[in-house]
Amino acid sequence: MTENPTAAVLVIGNEILSGRTQDTNSHAIARFLGPFGIALMEIRVVGDIEEDIVAALNALRHRYTYVFTTGGIGPTHDDITADAVAKAFGVGIDIHPEALMLLKARFAKNPADLNEMRKRMARIPFGGTLVKNGVSAAPGFQIENVFVMAGVPSIMQAMLDDVAPRLTRGRVVHAITIASRVAEGAIAGALARLQLEHPSVTIGSYPFYRPDGFGVQLVARSADLELVENAAQAIEQKLRDAGANAERLSP
Amino acid sequence: MTENPTAAVLVIGNEILSGRTQDTNSHAIARFLGPFGIALMEIRVVGDIEEDIVAALNALRHRYTYVFTTGGIGPTHDDITADAVAKAFGVGIDIHPEALMLLKARFAKNPADLNEMRKRMARIPFGGTLVKNGVSAAPGFQIENVFVMAGVPSIMQAMLDDVAPRLTRGRVVHAITIASRVAEGAIAGALARLQLEHPSVTIGSYPFYRPDGFGVQLVARSADLELVENAAQAIEQKLRDAGANAERLSP
Repeated sequence: MTENPTAAVLVIGNEILSGRTQDTNSHAIARFLGPFGIALMEIRVVGDIEEDIVAALNALRHRYTYVFTTGGIGPTHDDITADAVAKAFGVGIDIHPEALMLLKARFAKNPADLNEMRKRMARIPFGGTLVKNGVSAAPGFQIENVFVMAGVPSIMQAMLDDVAPRLTRGRVVHAITIASRVAEGAIAGALARLQLEHPSVTIGSYPFYRPDGFGVQLVARSADLELVENAAQAIEQKLRDAGANAERLSP
Repeated sequence: MTENPTAAVLVIGNEILSGRTQDTNSHAIARFLGPFGIALMEIRVVGDIEEDIVAALNALRHRYTYVFTTGGIGPTHDDITADAVAKAFGVGIDIHPEALMLLKARFAKNPADLNEMRKRMARIPFGGTLVKNGVSAAPGFQIENVFVMAGVPSIMQAMLDDVAPRLTRGRVVHAITIASRVAEGAIAGALARLQLEHPSVTIGSYPFYRPDGFGVQLVARSADLELVENAAQAIEQKLRDAGANAERLSP
C-alpha cells in the first residue's frame, strides 16, 4: 500500500458541523479513488473559518499525495475557501481570465446578472489551474497537489470527471467480502490467526445488527488479487470449521 | 459561540476510507450536540492505524472541550482503538473489573463463549470510566474529555444516552431556515450586507439543484433567538425586494 499514491479529503462547511447537512462528498470521493489505486488516508471536516481551513490544508497537503477539498467556492460571503487556499499556499489571488470567460459565457444572455459577487467565483489563487464542470460553469481549481471543488454533490461529481486524467494511478486494491450469520466474537481468535498468516492482506471485520438478526461481514483487501483470494478461501474455511455459513457478496 | 463548549468527532475505521461504508455517526453526533449548546468544530476520519489515531486524538483533545470517537472497540484484531487511546494519554490498559462483569452477565448462559478475544472488550485505559449501552453490553469509556464509543450506529446511539448527563451545556444555537427559488448569486450582494448588519448572527447560504428546479436555503444562526428572528425577517425582506419568494422551513 505504501508505494501507492495517498489522498485526504477536506470538507469545508458549517452546515456539516451543525448537523444541518449530512456530508456525502467524502464517501463519493472515497469510492471514486478506489479504481485509481489511490489510498484515501484521512478525511477532515472544518467550518467556514479561515484559520481552520488553512491549518487543515497545510497539515494534509504536506502529508499526502493529493488533497481534495469540497465546499465554500460559491458567490456568497460565507464562501471563503479560495482565499483560505491562497493563504495556505502563501500566494495572491485574483480574477482568472479563463474562469471569467466561463462565467461570461454562462451569463451571455443577461450580462448584467454577472454581478460582483458572482465574479468572485472567478478568483483563483496564483498558480492555480481550472477544474471545470458542465453543471454550474463556475470552476474549481487545482494548485499543486490540491483540488478545490464545489460542495454541491452534483457539481463536485462533475469536477471529479475533470480531475480524473490528472491523477497518478497506483495498484488497485482488490477486496472480497464474505458475510456470515456468526457473532463476530465467536470467530475473533481465528481471524486474528488468519491475519498473522496473511500479513500482506488486510482483514477487516464489520459486525451488523439488523431487524432479521446479527452477523458479520469479513473483508480481505490487498493489491494482489491472488493473495486476496487465498485469504478469502481461508476465511471461508474457518467459518465452516466454526459451523457458520459463508456467503461471498458481490463487490 | 466562543464561551460555549466545543467538540470534535474522530471516526476510526478503514471501512469509511475505503468507501465501503458511509459514515453516519458524525452526523448523528452533530445533531445530538445541538440541543446541548456544544459547538462541533471539527470531524476527522482516520484508519485503523495506531499512530494516526494517536496523532489525531492528541491534536483534538487538547484543542476542544470534548472529543467523541467512534469505531474500533470490538473483539477482533482490527479493533485497536482502546490501545491507541491509552497510548495517546500515556497510560496503561488492562481488564476493567466492572466491564468484565458486564460481559460476564451478557454471557451468563454460555460462559465459555466469553473467550479471550471477547474479554479484550473489557480492556479500558487506566483512569477511564465506562460508557454503557443496553444493546451489546460491551462498554465504551470516558477518559478525561474523550468519549470512546462503538462504530455500530445503534450501539453508538445507546452510548450517547449514557454520555449525555456528563456534558456541560452551553447556550443553544437557534437557527431559522428560509428557502427561496432564487439563484444564490442574484442575492449574494444583499446577503453580504446583511451579514455586516447582523454581526452576531451567522448567515449561511446553501444552494440546491433539484429535478424540479434550483434555489437556495438561507440559514440564520445565533444563541440569541431575538437576533436570529431579526436577521430572518431582514433576509425575507431582501428576498421580497428582489422579487423572490421566501418560505420558512420548520427547523
